[in-house]
Amino acid sequence: MRKTQMKLGLSMRYLGYHDAAWRHPEVPPGGATDFKYFLNSARIAERGKFDMVFFADGIGIRADDNPPGSLARSNRNAELEPLTLLSALAASTSHIGLVSTASTTYNEPFHIARKFASLDNISGGRAGWNIVTSWSEQEAWNFSRDAHLDYDTRYDRAKEFVDVVTGLWDSWEADAFVHDKASGQFYDPAKLHVLNHRGKHFSVRGPLNAPPTPQGRPILVQAGAAEQGQEIAAANADVVYAAQVDLAGAKAYYAGLKARMAKYGRAPDLLKVMPAVTTIVGRTRAEAQAKFDQLQELIDPLVGLASLFNAFGDLSGHPLDGPVPEPVNAKVRSIAYNMWNLAQRENLTIRQFYQKKSAGSGGLLLKGTAEDVADVMEQWIDEEAADGFNLTPTHLPHGAEDFVELVVPELRRRGRFRSEYESTTLRGNLGLPEYVNRHTAGRQRTALASD
Amino acid sequence: MRKTQMKLGLSMRYLGYHDAAWRHPEVPPGGATDFKYFLNSARIAERGKFDMVFFADGIGIRADDNPPGSLARSNRNAELEPLTLLSALAASTSHIGLVSTASTTYNEPFHIARKFASLDNISGGRAGWNIVTSWSEQEAWNFSRDAHLDYDTRYDRAKEFVDVVTGLWDSWEADAFVHDKASGQFYDPAKLHVLNHRGKHFSVRGPLNAPPTPQGRPILVQAGAAEQGQEIAAANADVVYAAQVDLAGAKAYYAGLKARMAKYGRAPDLLKVMPAVTTIVGRTRAEAQAKFDQLQELIDPLVGLASLFNAFGDLSGHPLDGPVPEPVNAKVRSIAYNMWNLAQRENLTIRQFYQKKSAGSGGLLLKGTAEDVADVMEQWIDEEAADGFNLTPTHLPHGAEDFVELVVPELRRRGRFRSEYESTTLRGNLGLPEYVNRHTAGRQRTALASD
Repeated sequence: MRKTQMKLGLSMRYLGYHDAAWRHPEVPPGGATDFKYFLNSARIAERGKFDMVFFADGIGIRADDNPPGSLARSNRNAELEPLTLLSALAASTSHIGLVSTASTTYNEPFHIARKFASLDNISGGRAGWNIVTSWSEQEAWNFSRDAHLDYDTRYDRAKEFVDVVTGLWDSWEADAFVHDKASGQFYDPAKLHVLNHRGKHFSVRGPLNAPPTPQGRPILVQAGAAEQGQEIAAANADVVYAAQVDLAGAKAYYAGLKARMAKYGRAPDLLKVMPAVTTIVGRTRAEAQAKFDQLQELIDPLVGLASLFNAFGDLSGHPLDGPVPEPVNAKVRSIAYNMWNLAQRENLTIRQFYQKKSAGSGGLLLKGTAEDVADVMEQWIDEEAADGFNLTPTHLPHGAEDFVELVVPELRRRGRFRSEYESTTLRGNLGLPEYVNRHTAGRQRTALASD
Repeated sequence: MRKTQMKLGLSMRYLGYHDAAWRHPEVPPGGATDFKYFLNSARIAERGKFDMVFFADGIGIRADDNPPGSLARSNRNAELEPLTLLSALAASTSHIGLVSTASTTYNEPFHIARKFASLDNISGGRAGWNIVTSWSEQEAWNFSRDAHLDYDTRYDRAKEFVDVVTGLWDSWEADAFVHDKASGQFYDPAKLHVLNHRGKHFSVRGPLNAPPTPQGRPILVQAGAAEQGQEIAAANADVVYAAQVDLAGAKAYYAGLKARMAKYGRAPDLLKVMPAVTTIVGRTRAEAQAKFDQLQELIDPLVGLASLFNAFGDLSGHPLDGPVPEPVNAKVRSIAYNMWNLAQRENLTIRQFYQKKSAGSGGLLLKGTAEDVADVMEQWIDEEAADGFNLTPTHLPHGAEDFVELVVPELRRRGRFRSEYESTTLRGNLGLPEYVNRHTAGRQRTALASD
């Protein structure tokens, strides 16, 4: 059995992952648009020696007000844009990794390559890009499209997008800039590489007008369990942000993903699988339960019913404390029936059902003392279900604060988490090997072969 | 005659605007990719109470190595991306405005609206967007196009782009977010406005997923003297970044631009015209001249000849200290002949000619004591050739330092520049009125009419 330390990330979006986060008495409801709010949480995570902060993102907001009145009762609308926010955080933190989602569907690879390279330089080697495809019509409508791209086109585009971005990041070798004031030579032209990419979705000449970065290149993160996404992860990713709810499923996912890496010539250790976990921690189990109950009671019924709308239609005419009716208006019938079966199995009322959905990020939910939480996390590491976790707190900054004050010391006592950063780069802290520019590597291989 | 204070901006790109900036003994040659280098210069400008720092930008680098060997001797290639850089600067400065170029040709309006809104929030109301169109094939090639868009299409797209961005910025009225924890109401739906833009170049539904900003909306800057650009400026801009080299031309440009504003119902004072100025300042004229000579002698002949290539072809076979030959290979013959006529008139050698071109940003060049420089700046303000200036220093940080230490005190003695910031927002420091969301304004007009 391994005795491995885990990696930890703090996911931040809006005010936390609980649907009622903004109504918590101690949460500043305008926090999602306030730089200082995120700076405070990032510093808490850095104090706890987390590997990274992580921002999910979307480039559109929910358009349908179903049930009527629910939209204006949700706090998931206005927020700061993550790349500007992470750049500002870079200037005010020193060690923590800075990871953001950017969609491959409604962006251009040149912009994305350039911005993350810039963030990696500004932060001294702490940038990471979470590769996603956009899936919602709300996003398509903001980018001159009437409908979103179909699944295959999105992933085909995403794969090529990643190839272009990583190709652009290798434009300049690490020692390309000689800066010889006496001779007037600024760079060595043999170490500048023009990409000349011509593909199905993109034609990008390059080179990138950004310098080599402290990490060699930014860290690549992939989120989501879709088949094509897993291939992109196996081929490229340094970190996978997973959403697994039980040990057996997480182990299967972990094993499957790592097994896919062989065909890309990659060792399993090069990819860190980090499932999402929402923790509600107290000094006693009763205290944790009380914290949880307080939030659950604050869920607005309309917001709760909105989270069920796609699968069950408008349930506002049904008694909240009565049974969950069979799904008849589901957009995706299989998901709707899976949800309904769960509700039947656990004999949940409508209120209990939406409370369950609204409590976290859709991943693992752990509630109890620091020991309770550490027990499960340790087990997931030991049984190869995870290499670490992305904390998706119910509400910020408290969810992060509780974890850093209560759970982190317990993980350290068990030898499961660092007391000091090993490196100033995210790559170094993740324990990943140095990245060598493909052209430098090619030259080294050629030199070796001719020896 | 007016006795008006001037506005001041500091333009920063690469290591300054002199072609030999990177070879100056005191300039760190890797500065353009180093956040701390720009932070230092931004803080110098903030100490001098400048209105703003300003970043030009391009999304591609020169592709042709003409004359051969010149490309790798220029420092204009790798740099930090300005929006990430300005966001990092926002966290480390307190009053200075943060303005960046972003192209309307190879961007999407939703991204641009969102990023500048985010920067405005992060900085507490100090963001500005410099609206440009891209013009080079090098940029087109990085965005899946074989050739750049023609002039009319670029400006037509730019106009619609600005309409979409400003429309998105008005998505949420200033008091839209009620944050009523007790009732569960997060925002007032009457104060959220869906754009539903459908135009020739873009379809953008909105609303923007970014909050109202401290300035109401970011400051709009327009650069460039092209006919269509001036219309965009007259209709929308708060600041124009001009490049005028003589008083008569600057006065005509100033008057013409302000006259265009009437048809958009805008008062002339709502637009600040700020020509570029490169200053070389010494405690004596001899000291200034010595500083200038030092840089001029550092211009690499190949870099100098590269700056003449488009108009004159490869001059590397001609003696540098001989006359400038008639342009025969010019891409744009009228510009080439204008240049040639100037060289003939001033009887310039090839070396003297490229030294003239390489010395600054192409705008006004002032050399001498603080009094000399202040005299000209004052005259331009008094004769309505400018409302202020964008400093384009030969090299950073020294060009900015000299100006702040020598010229700024002289301008203050003359009552021409502030000693303290009037406001914490760029809009406030520029002396512009508060921006009122169009929907709020519409409601106020309706209420007034029904009184």
